[in-house]
Amino acid sequence: MLDTTGTLQHVDLDNFTTEAGISLPVRIAYQAWGTYRGDNVVLVEHALTGDSDAATWWEGLIGPGLALDTDRYCVVCTNALGGCKGSTGPSSERPNGFWGSQFPALSIRDLVHAEAQSLSALGIEQLHAVVGGSMGGARALEWAALYPQRVHAAAVIAVSARASAWQIGIQSAQIAAIEQDPAWRGGDYYRYAAPIEGLKTARRIAHLTYRGELEIDERFGTDAQPGENPLGPYRNPNQRFAVQSYLDYQGNKLCERFDAGSYVILTEALNRHDIGRDRGGLNKALASIQVPIFVVGIDTDILYPYHQQEHISRNVGNLLGMAKVSSPVGHDAFLTETRQMDRILRRFLTLAADLPAEN
Amino acid sequence: MLDTTGTLQHVDLDNFTTEAGISLPVRIAYQAWGTYRGDNVVLVEHALTGDSDAATWWEGLIGPGLALDTDRYCVVCTNALGGCKGSTGPSSERPNGFWGSQFPALSIRDLVHAEAQSLSALGIEQLHAVVGGSMGGARALEWAALYPQRVHAAAVIAVSARASAWQIGIQSAQIAAIEQDPAWRGGDYYRYAAPIEGLKTARRIAHLTYRGELEIDERFGTDAQPGENPLGPYRNPNQRFAVQSYLDYQGNKLCERFDAGSYVILTEALNRHDIGRDRGGLNKALASIQVPIFVVGIDTDILYPYHQQEHISRNVGNLLGMAKVSSPVGHDAFLTETRQMDRILRRFLTLAADLPAEN
Repeated sequence: MLDTTGTLQHVDLDNFTTEAGISLPVRIAYQAWGTYRGDNVVLVEHALTGDSDAATWWEGLIGPGLALDTDRYCVVCTNALGGCKGSTGPSSERPNGFWGSQFPALSIRDLVHAEAQSLSALGIEQLHAVVGGSMGGARALEWAALYPQRVHAAAVIAVSARASAWQIGIQSAQIAAIEQDPAWRGGDYYRYAAPIEGLKTARRIAHLTYRGELEIDERFGTDAQPGENPLGPYRNPNQRFAVQSYLDYQGNKLCERFDAGSYVILTEALNRHDIGRDRGGLNKALASIQVPIFVVGIDTDILYPYHQQEHISRNVGNLLGMAKVSSPVGHDAFLTETRQMDRILRRFLTLAADLPAEN
Repeated sequence: MLDTTGTLQHVDLDNFTTEAGISLPVRIAYQAWGTYRGDNVVLVEHALTGDSDAATWWEGLIGPGLALDTDRYCVVCTNALGGCKGSTGPSSERPNGFWGSQFPALSIRDLVHAEAQSLSALGIEQLHAVVGGSMGGARALEWAALYPQRVHAAAVIAVSARASAWQIGIQSAQIAAIEQDPAWRGGDYYRYAAPIEGLKTARRIAHLTYRGELEIDERFGTDAQPGENPLGPYRNPNQRFAVQSYLDYQGNKLCERFDAGSYVILTEALNRHDIGRDRGGLNKALASIQVPIFVVGIDTDILYPYHQQEHISRNVGNLLGMAKVSSPVGHDAFLTETRQMDRILRRFLTLAADLPAEN
């Protein structure tokens, strides 16, 4: 039974099979808020290093009277398969040790299938809406493609219909930085120290794709970190520009809360994101989507440039609407521009409520 | 005496002092083409991993009858101080071994001072034009700021008036990838194997900043590398998308021709690029530049976005003109869009020739 107290719960699936054919038992963690009335579930999908605590990472947007109004909707958020916040991932234990390098590769579709089976186990078949940004947006779009009968409408935010070569390239460079850390040990480091230097470098790179170039520059420019001199006579990694200190901080913060193995598995799932795979190609697959899709993009997004959301909107079979977030922040704006996201999510839910009950 | 046969030559400076106060003997390599007539030198400045062989890396633009017409101009190109193609850098030997970690940090100004002193040693005081893109553009702009009496006009291509925080961030991540390679040995690896894995990762990241996101995607999309399956049941770094193979190739190619120590020193020189330093701030420093400056930008440049060239053009004291390269290629377009660069360089040199002899 669905627990809607907002506390971390989980569902066990005895036998889950990945798109590439590996079977394993998995646990999917979730949190839920509001009262379940059968037809009022809003499924919120988190981004790469997010978790099921959507009420925290989307603070101001989920709660009584807020855009995702828990007086009206039952908001559910799962932790992605492969993650490290309650769902099974590389850092999970199994009878003979940790999964580590033996954890199967995942696709975005695998994440959605595991989530769909978990919701079924909880008795939830119909979703009033699926909403997500970035990796969460990829999952929202795959929900519409994989489970059209279960999804009333979807909001697909700051993502593309498939990984671009540039994304695959920059994401693979992050994986390489982790793999090159000797502490990585081929992915089987769980009885040892974590590969934090590799994960920090990956996060530094990633963070620069999450933030707008102008916003970063306005904040830091060429300022030295207070008390440090990045212009000294010899190279010294401890004498930094302010932006280096900021990125080190972002890297350290991530290392405290996230597992390198999950980072690698989920980053590779993003590399595998492709709505067109085994569906006759990208635009045919998009055209066949009949679930009403609301597309949201950000004008300064480096990682998922706005033309990628325009591509979805031009090709998807049933476009419910489109919105653009204006922000210097870049990709992360869907998490930080709360006022704009509030208006956008309210508009989406109004349109979704006006749709006939059958899509 | 200046050798204009196009073969690699060098100048030794017994005592060079860096901006941060370190003195050392340095050698600067150069190549030159055409006939030196006292007032007809066009100094070409190479980019980060370039070298003095400008006639090769700017093929089609330097030679008899070409834009940089060697029948008319004497084209000179030095290898940057800190490099590994004939000039003194971390991989150079000194009496008690290789420089390695004892090589001083450099600024773009250091590169220009060393070049200016080398040209003086060759008897060249006046430059008809200084032309460069990327790190070469940073040097061209510093030439105008440091040696206004010696520069008749400068073409500043695909660069900014100072490093942006985003550039410092992404460039520092590249340095971190190299430093985290155990083969780096703190920079003192010259008697051992080179840190090629770190340098490869750095180059993968860098290359994605040199190329337009659309161009990379149009070439590779989500294609698998022929004979490999990036969608297999388990993660496998040997099963790649085509773009991963392409970036691996770019990384391997660089490792064959470039030294990791030079890469780190020159990347950090780019981090230190700031026309405004010790000159009363960025816009005051730009306004004080009286050498006629021709600014060139590229519409799809991720690394040095076009607004940065607009910033130079709006603030520089003596704007000779501005041009925009239209290309899907991104930053590297100044090397690849030969037809457009031909027109632009001819226009620049026509304007420069029309200027009065004294600036």
